[in-house]
Amino acid sequence: MEFSSKLLEKAVQEIAMLPGIGKRTALRLALHLLKQPKEHTKSLSEALTSLREEVVFCTKCHNLSDQELCEICSSSKRDQKVLCVVEDIRDVMAIENTGQFQGVYHVLGGLISPMEGIGPQDLTIPSLVNKAKTHQIEEVIFALSATMEADTTNFYIYKLLAPYNIKTSTIARGIPVGDELEYTDEVTLGRSIIARIPFEASFTKK
Amino acid sequence: MEFSSKLLEKAVQEIAMLPGIGKRTALRLALHLLKQPKEHTKSLSEALTSLREEVVFCTKCHNLSDQELCEICSSSKRDQKVLCVVEDIRDVMAIENTGQFQGVYHVLGGLISPMEGIGPQDLTIPSLVNKAKTHQIEEVIFALSATMEADTTNFYIYKLLAPYNIKTSTIARGIPVGDELEYTDEVTLGRSIIARIPFEASFTKK
Repeated sequence: MEFSSKLLEKAVQEIAMLPGIGKRTALRLALHLLKQPKEHTKSLSEALTSLREEVVFCTKCHNLSDQELCEICSSSKRDQKVLCVVEDIRDVMAIENTGQFQGVYHVLGGLISPMEGIGPQDLTIPSLVNKAKTHQIEEVIFALSATMEADTTNFYIYKLLAPYNIKTSTIARGIPVGDELEYTDEVTLGRSIIARIPFEASFTKK
Repeated sequence: MEFSSKLLEKAVQEIAMLPGIGKRTALRLALHLLKQPKEHTKSLSEALTSLREEVVFCTKCHNLSDQELCEICSSSKRDQKVLCVVEDIRDVMAIENTGQFQGVYHVLGGLISPMEGIGPQDLTIPSLVNKAKTHQIEEVIFALSATMEADTTNFYIYKLLAPYNIKTSTIARGIPVGDELEYTDEVTLGRSIIARIPFEASFTKK
């Protein structure tokens, strides 16, 4: 691309470094900003800078936070003894959106994946084991995806926690609410039969 | 979405204000920046700020520029008497990429569109007429899209320039290079027969 402005070229280059954004989209975004009031660009770039400079990871649950302890970990309304293990901070947001969980989280920061060279020491697993060792938790709920890496990670952590007499569970695999039985894959359907629950327990709280 | 960090929430809101970027994509981009070195975010936000603060429009051709006169308008290698009229700065970039044009540009900043309430006074048409009036140009090439608004704009400017004895032309409409005849729409094919050119002139310069 031939740019008539070096500043435009630089901005397009920088935007195009973001994942999933090509040069054409970057140009479209840059031209959009030029059409908007200067304040828009100012507040966008300030928000990005302060995000990157000031956001920290909660020292307890490893979730993104503005303070040393995140809002969930420092809340007296949450049951600090019930820990939900998730892969990513996006999963925390997803579970928080349901409004069904009153405990706290532990963000692993990834999954064990020998293929990608990610081992237990690259994740926050030692910190999780430490919580178990120091009797900070009574119950652990595994809320990882239903993939092979997630199952491996689940099992690895399960083994590590075994000596500490902690109640463990994993979120239910089954047919998504609203889905039709005939279109459900057989593995899911099979699991949902094995993991059947008492009918009375199937009424949702909401 | 429930955010554990106000800074993250603010950044996601700001990013999601860009056209074509939703909240989920904005979150993905924000989390990507958090995984990158701080310098990435810094240089991105600096590039955006300086783009918006320092870029100006060339006073002559209304293209984006870093100085009062853009590189093309201030170049002695370009024929300042031959003017190519385009809608947008993206069109300047597209034509510059071909390397086939040695004149200068005039960026209209849009097309006449009564439907959207855009009249001639909203575009840089007065400045174009002024160039004709003050004998700054000898030839005008219309390089607008092949839409109804573009045809209207073409014709409107053509009428305005009529008194000034300026050579006018429009870029050729025809079958794109590489396209097959049988799949070309009939209007384009019909026009390409009417606007046929001597065979010798069909050899490209490149």
